[in-house]
Amino acid sequence: MDYRFSSRVNQLQSSAVRDILKLTQGQEIVSFAGGLPAEELFPLDAVRQAADRVFTNGSGSLQYGLTEGFLPLREQLCGRMANKGMPVSPDEMILTTGSQQAIDLIVRVLTEPGDTVLVENPTYLASLQVFAMNGLNVEAAESDNDGMLLDAAERILRERKPKLVYVVPTFGNPTGRVWSLERRTGLLELCRKYGVPILEDDPYGDIRFDASASYPTIFSLGGQAEGGCVLYTGTFSKTVAPALRTGWAIGDKRVIRNMAKVKQAADLHSSTLDQQTLSELLRHFALDDHIRLIADEYGKRMRHMVSLLKGCGVPELNWAEPQGGMFIWLELPEALDAEALLRSAVQKGVAFVPGVSFYAGEPKRNTVRMNFTYTTGQRMEAGVARLAEAIGEFTARR
Amino acid sequence: MDYRFSSRVNQLQSSAVRDILKLTQGQEIVSFAGGLPAEELFPLDAVRQAADRVFTNGSGSLQYGLTEGFLPLREQLCGRMANKGMPVSPDEMILTTGSQQAIDLIVRVLTEPGDTVLVENPTYLASLQVFAMNGLNVEAAESDNDGMLLDAAERILRERKPKLVYVVPTFGNPTGRVWSLERRTGLLELCRKYGVPILEDDPYGDIRFDASASYPTIFSLGGQAEGGCVLYTGTFSKTVAPALRTGWAIGDKRVIRNMAKVKQAADLHSSTLDQQTLSELLRHFALDDHIRLIADEYGKRMRHMVSLLKGCGVPELNWAEPQGGMFIWLELPEALDAEALLRSAVQKGVAFVPGVSFYAGEPKRNTVRMNFTYTTGQRMEAGVARLAEAIGEFTARR
Repeated sequence: MDYRFSSRVNQLQSSAVRDILKLTQGQEIVSFAGGLPAEELFPLDAVRQAADRVFTNGSGSLQYGLTEGFLPLREQLCGRMANKGMPVSPDEMILTTGSQQAIDLIVRVLTEPGDTVLVENPTYLASLQVFAMNGLNVEAAESDNDGMLLDAAERILRERKPKLVYVVPTFGNPTGRVWSLERRTGLLELCRKYGVPILEDDPYGDIRFDASASYPTIFSLGGQAEGGCVLYTGTFSKTVAPALRTGWAIGDKRVIRNMAKVKQAADLHSSTLDQQTLSELLRHFALDDHIRLIADEYGKRMRHMVSLLKGCGVPELNWAEPQGGMFIWLELPEALDAEALLRSAVQKGVAFVPGVSFYAGEPKRNTVRMNFTYTTGQRMEAGVARLAEAIGEFTARR
Repeated sequence: MDYRFSSRVNQLQSSAVRDILKLTQGQEIVSFAGGLPAEELFPLDAVRQAADRVFTNGSGSLQYGLTEGFLPLREQLCGRMANKGMPVSPDEMILTTGSQQAIDLIVRVLTEPGDTVLVENPTYLASLQVFAMNGLNVEAAESDNDGMLLDAAERILRERKPKLVYVVPTFGNPTGRVWSLERRTGLLELCRKYGVPILEDDPYGDIRFDASASYPTIFSLGGQAEGGCVLYTGTFSKTVAPALRTGWAIGDKRVIRNMAKVKQAADLHSSTLDQQTLSELLRHFALDDHIRLIADEYGKRMRHMVSLLKGCGVPELNWAEPQGGMFIWLELPEALDAEALLRSAVQKGVAFVPGVSFYAGEPKRNTVRMNFTYTTGQRMEAGVARLAEAIGEFTARR
């Protein structure tokens, strides 16, 4: 049998992160590559008890569920969204298999192959994969530490007429950056002016190191779901645990309803055991206290990594200290190619993701994404030392 | 904000079944409409214990998992597939969110918008939705009680050059029919001749009323995954429980690998809590004994419904008694429109799915899909009586 594959498959490149993980299999490698949360912080006992309570509700808990998701969980999430200045009703929300699925559904609902999507440069790798898989042209506006450059964004909005704008304005992946309020309101105004919906992807917004800091979402600046141009996605993957695969999207009812139509064909509904477990968890567990605990611990780990980078003896190593999230975005000495460096770094027993993977347009080849949440203490120290050694040798060779 | 939706969304019709369920909300209705398994037969305690064992494995059980699915469960499923004459290795298998997702992934991997898919007429509604959503032309070959008519199939294969053939050869939804061995081997030979892959969807194959009966899958007749033209999908939704949302696809490695690429962008992976729970369940629970118990009970319910239909006093009511699965396919008196009937049936307190929803080509408007697994005893009796009453009034009015 001679299989012919669709063009969407051929447009999909295998994920660099996955290839690296394959490279590291069976070796003693310190990996800063994955975007993995800290396992030891998962609220295992609370999840276990919550799951068990689901079963006490009887056999009905194992039956087919609604495509839009378990209603009590949607109601609880609406309460949480309202607390963040995003008042929505349950029919303005859909539960998905992680927020990753929400991104694919939104793209399938709002775009045709050949349409254009506007993104920050660099941006989240797996969203670039969704855009490639759905045949979209990706136009990237450059960003600085305050977010997307609005002039660049407007030029693309005017000239390329994108059907969607995709941004991660709070502790973005890969850069960890936080957009300023001006850029948030500025993009919102631009998108209203040009009539283009914004997909605000917010997996990391809760993981802020300064408990008193506040970063209003673009959705909250827009005011409301109905008639609004912002679609917002969130997830429990970073605040509870990834295995429960539960994310959500909120936005205008018409979009949510069409997402449900597509989801019905795509997988009928996501795991209702997971959704019911999360609902029971929210009922009996102080999730916000837990999130504070995670964020504090991640803040410590970030500062540890920063101190190691400062002391590692490599000149011309630059980064902006993140205020939240899971990643530090490193700039290596100019003209050093992070992909080439990775090969020798893996030999030395350390892995990271070369920044090139996250660019839609022209990449900065000397950039690196470092995760600081998964690897701790002495392993983190050993990893940064190995990285410094690899950079040192590489720089000497040039 | 003026949202414009993609053509794929506009091609999707809202599911008739869902619309009916809305119609019946808040009313005392006996529903033969849903394709729901019997809740009281779910192995609730075994699932509960299995889930609890997952948590004893520690926090790692809540971390991100592989896109292809939890490896121990794939290994266990390979054993089960081998027992059915389908020897495959774990890298010839991918776990999905129900088998519904496997269908969407296969379509995304093997077809482009505008391509043609060949199906039986009538066929599974939610697959027709996948085809519509992905912009496919659907060509339907007529079927009789032995399966798809091979002459009709070959004509379409030759003239319309489909990229995929989709069939449910064992206790199909909606008809409950079983293909004969000749039709199975016949379609396999045709698809080899024309170089077209077959998607063999088998959610009901285990639910056979005669324990000694054997219906070899088309995949097993094809011999092997590598280089074979059959992709096979299965699910735990009918044998364990739908809430766990775990299905699988097996087939040639190249297809599976590309499905994983698409799935990575679509949702990263399905719930690993569900997958680990099922793995623990298979380790400690006699699933095949449980399946026998379900099938025996469903057989009883089917015979009960058949006896009620026989005694309900409506002349010209026809059906073929199913040998397995969850549905009876009724032919109402000629020229009676099942959609029109539904409206008055709902008034009387009974619901079903008009057959028209399941046709890709010209529908038989006097057909009805009746589920016999969810409603039992006196409620089933009341439901059939109400249906007979509705038909009687309807026939009198004509």
